[in-house]
Amino acid sequence: MTGTRGIHHIGVAVHDVAAAVERYALLVGATVDHEAVVDEQGVHAVALRAGDGPLIELLAPTGDDTPVGRFLAKRGEGMHHVAYEVDDLRAHLERLRAEGVELIDAEPRNGLFGMQVAFIHPEAAFGCLVELVQPKEHA
Amino acid sequence: MTGTRGIHHIGVAVHDVAAAVERYALLVGATVDHEAVVDEQGVHAVALRAGDGPLIELLAPTGDDTPVGRFLAKRGEGMHHVAYEVDDLRAHLERLRAEGVELIDAEPRNGLFGMQVAFIHPEAAFGCLVELVQPKEHA
Repeated sequence: MTGTRGIHHIGVAVHDVAAAVERYALLVGATVDHEAVVDEQGVHAVALRAGDGPLIELLAPTGDDTPVGRFLAKRGEGMHHVAYEVDDLRAHLERLRAEGVELIDAEPRNGLFGMQVAFIHPEAAFGCLVELVQPKEHA
Repeated sequence: MTGTRGIHHIGVAVHDVAAAVERYALLVGATVDHEAVVDEQGVHAVALRAGDGPLIELLAPTGDDTPVGRFLAKRGEGMHHVAYEVDDLRAHLERLRAEGVELIDAEPRNGLFGMQVAFIHPEAAFGCLVELVQPKEHA
């Protein structure tokens, strides 16, 4: 088993990042940790810190024809994905592929905030979109 | 601001707990931490540990006419809720109510695994069902 470190963040799709930041501050005392607009991924992402636990990643689309824009059109606002940190993403993906797990990304790719990431198909995880991440400092 | 401690667990609705336990072991190295069948809530819950982070709470219904059974009929398997730990649930709920936040539970009630819990309406949290929990040891 390659090493896994549990939940790294949860991703929440929203229309209005500023409103969501304000609401999560009220609901659970979350504060902005870092944020980025990534045009090539069509997303405005804000990572919120809440206690010592995983981050809350708010995702708003930069346009309708983007992954998050299409998600919002189809599903509306809400939970988008759950990300788990692994020590060696490439080895972890190879192991899952050998076990027949349906992967969206067979290889690590560049994700938000300098992470290497890969998504697993929701059909392989009981309806949850699962992201595996390897933060930069472990790459 | 009453104290908040970040994400306590995520809740995932599934039909078959045993299959989900096996799959999460493969995907993210999760192991069973504790479990319970709670007839009055109509749920078979298994809490999985993954790394040092929040638990993954798998929720399967004990019958169709239960909260999780109705969720599965309407939405299918997938993310059910995100739970955040607070130090003083009653005070936290009072503050949210004073701010006009739409609550499902205006008062703490008995949840799974001996926790005091209350749910916030998804409309108040951008489509996410948010649970606030106060574990027994802080009650």
